[in-house]
Amino acid sequence: IGHLDSEFIKIMDEAQAMLRMLYQTENRMTIPISGTGSSGMETLVANLINPQDKVIVVKNGVFGGRIADTVSRFGAEVISIDLEWGTVVTPEQIRKAFSRNRYHALFLVQAETSTGAHQQHMREIGEIVHQNGALFLVDAVTSLGGTEVKIDEWGIDAAYSGTQKCLSVPPGLSPITLNEKAMQKLRARKARSWYFDLGMIEQYWNEGNQRKYHHTAPINMIYALHEGLRLVLQEGLHARFQRHRRNAAALQPGLEALGFTYLVKKQNERLPMLHAVYLPDGLEEGKLRQNIRARYNIEIGGGLGEFSGKAWRIGLMGHSSTKDKVGRLLNSIGEELKKHGIIDDATIGFQAAQTIYQNSES
Amino acid sequence: IGHLDSEFIKIMDEAQAMLRMLYQTENRMTIPISGTGSSGMETLVANLINPQDKVIVVKNGVFGGRIADTVSRFGAEVISIDLEWGTVVTPEQIRKAFSRNRYHALFLVQAETSTGAHQQHMREIGEIVHQNGALFLVDAVTSLGGTEVKIDEWGIDAAYSGTQKCLSVPPGLSPITLNEKAMQKLRARKARSWYFDLGMIEQYWNEGNQRKYHHTAPINMIYALHEGLRLVLQEGLHARFQRHRRNAAALQPGLEALGFTYLVKKQNERLPMLHAVYLPDGLEEGKLRQNIRARYNIEIGGGLGEFSGKAWRIGLMGHSSTKDKVGRLLNSIGEELKKHGIIDDATIGFQAAQTIYQNSES
Repeated sequence: IGHLDSEFIKIMDEAQAMLRMLYQTENRMTIPISGTGSSGMETLVANLINPQDKVIVVKNGVFGGRIADTVSRFGAEVISIDLEWGTVVTPEQIRKAFSRNRYHALFLVQAETSTGAHQQHMREIGEIVHQNGALFLVDAVTSLGGTEVKIDEWGIDAAYSGTQKCLSVPPGLSPITLNEKAMQKLRARKARSWYFDLGMIEQYWNEGNQRKYHHTAPINMIYALHEGLRLVLQEGLHARFQRHRRNAAALQPGLEALGFTYLVKKQNERLPMLHAVYLPDGLEEGKLRQNIRARYNIEIGGGLGEFSGKAWRIGLMGHSSTKDKVGRLLNSIGEELKKHGIIDDATIGFQAAQTIYQNSES
Repeated sequence: IGHLDSEFIKIMDEAQAMLRMLYQTENRMTIPISGTGSSGMETLVANLINPQDKVIVVKNGVFGGRIADTVSRFGAEVISIDLEWGTVVTPEQIRKAFSRNRYHALFLVQAETSTGAHQQHMREIGEIVHQNGALFLVDAVTSLGGTEVKIDEWGIDAAYSGTQKCLSVPPGLSPITLNEKAMQKLRARKARSWYFDLGMIEQYWNEGNQRKYHHTAPINMIYALHEGLRLVLQEGLHARFQRHRRNAAALQPGLEALGFTYLVKKQNERLPMLHAVYLPDGLEEGKLRQNIRARYNIEIGGGLGEFSGKAWRIGLMGHSSTKDKVGRLLNSIGEELKKHGIIDDATIGFQAAQTIYQNSES
């Protein structure tokens, strides 16, 4: 059936309603954009940033840098808060940045996938941004469905995510949400994009009303998103976030027992779904990653940006955040490290994780 | 497996090679953009059109209008050739347009899906555009895989298509192709889009070389495209185009026998894959379309733009261009028209089509 068929529209309405639950928002404009995660970023910029706007961008990893690049391509001025990679911004730093001038928006990444850093104090940051009359824009690509994203409570004016992270759906859509304040800003002018023009796209995702064709929706991806969201809500947000935290809490001492060290120094600023770690000395990271993929069928991400070739990014996202996967991963790495003579006992990582699981179950 | 895995990269390379065969081009830069058909349009504009450029856009339907809108959003000046819907532009009209000024590009739609008009004289138009030092940019959304698209022979500098038309793949990718002249123009500056920046995307689709991550590719869609292209080439381009022409040649007198009239008056300017027709008098088009969908499981498109509510758009694309489907469609419409007392014999459309099939087989 086609992308304007009434049966398909029912699927769209349901997907929208479920997305609102995940984003913990009442925002009417909560829809998937027809592109991968970064297309949501570009949608926010094309619709909400005017040329000559001054935009504060927190840069603490690859994705903050990408936002800054996009904002400046659309003709706005970027004021960077440049941080050491692996750290997050403090409310104090944001307050200080706003003290210097008037800015139109603040853009930050909640879960920086390149470093595993988890932005804290979101509510407080939201308050500072609003006191200064700016829009609070958030990259929730890796956080949505894996940890709290409280759009309304935190005062986030607009956010975007991806489907292939904690929703466990193939890549290809970017769920976004905008509140009325953001919608008013975008309605004041024509978007500097046709494909991402939310004023027109809104008329296609027009709940309960006549739908107006904009572009052909990637319908198969919307079916997949619908099913992914259904599974998230079936598990329940609370249970899902707890599961992510529990498995992260077990993986962490396991990796440390094997000699890995986290890029993010402060434990409370580490993401539960993405573990970015330096390897023990004396290992060629690319070769080791390939061996683990070939021998144990486990795929590990390489470092991004300045960590390329220096670190690993281990995902424990959505359906793959399980006790079984944590165990298999630690045992596989243990076997390889033993072969390289780095450790004597291949099971020490696994044992460290088991201890955590046993304690949390008792 | 991930979007940077060597096994996936093999699929990418094969998809690229097959796309070149469909586009009949040697262009290295022949790749699918991560969005639906219109995202290819936006990619060409964001990468090839500078602000203050003067761009001639042929407007003979919805999609020409969309191109003009996009070009102007990116700050360029649009010079329209406004034509009656259902007609195509002549080389003489293009020559005349170029006589007035210097222009940077000419943009036209090869297969205008809103009217069923098939642009003719592509090679001659390409020559005129190049004599005037401009880029020749073509929308091949509905044409690719259903009728000839000869990028190199016709001198097309850049083109885009979609997957859900004659490739019979779900919507979600936009295959594009750019020649060296177009690549030189885009390399001269930074694209006014991050998501569609071909300079960066090129480094991900970097045949035979190191791949650089840009955005996570919609891998499931690329698998689907790969399979769709494989099936097109298995059938063979010549056989496939002939099949489209044969079934169109049979549907046409069938629809006319039932009292339908084509929007495109000149028979040689009608597309084989899209039949846009006015209904016989005394029928409510929406209701009739719904009945045919509910009773016979056949989906017909409504009119677009100025033909909304006034005409039908019947697709005979890719796998659905078959003799069986032509017959079922004409019989279904015939039944419904008989119920409404518009015709006495429900089979007259079918019979007219049969006559054509019999003659072409003898």
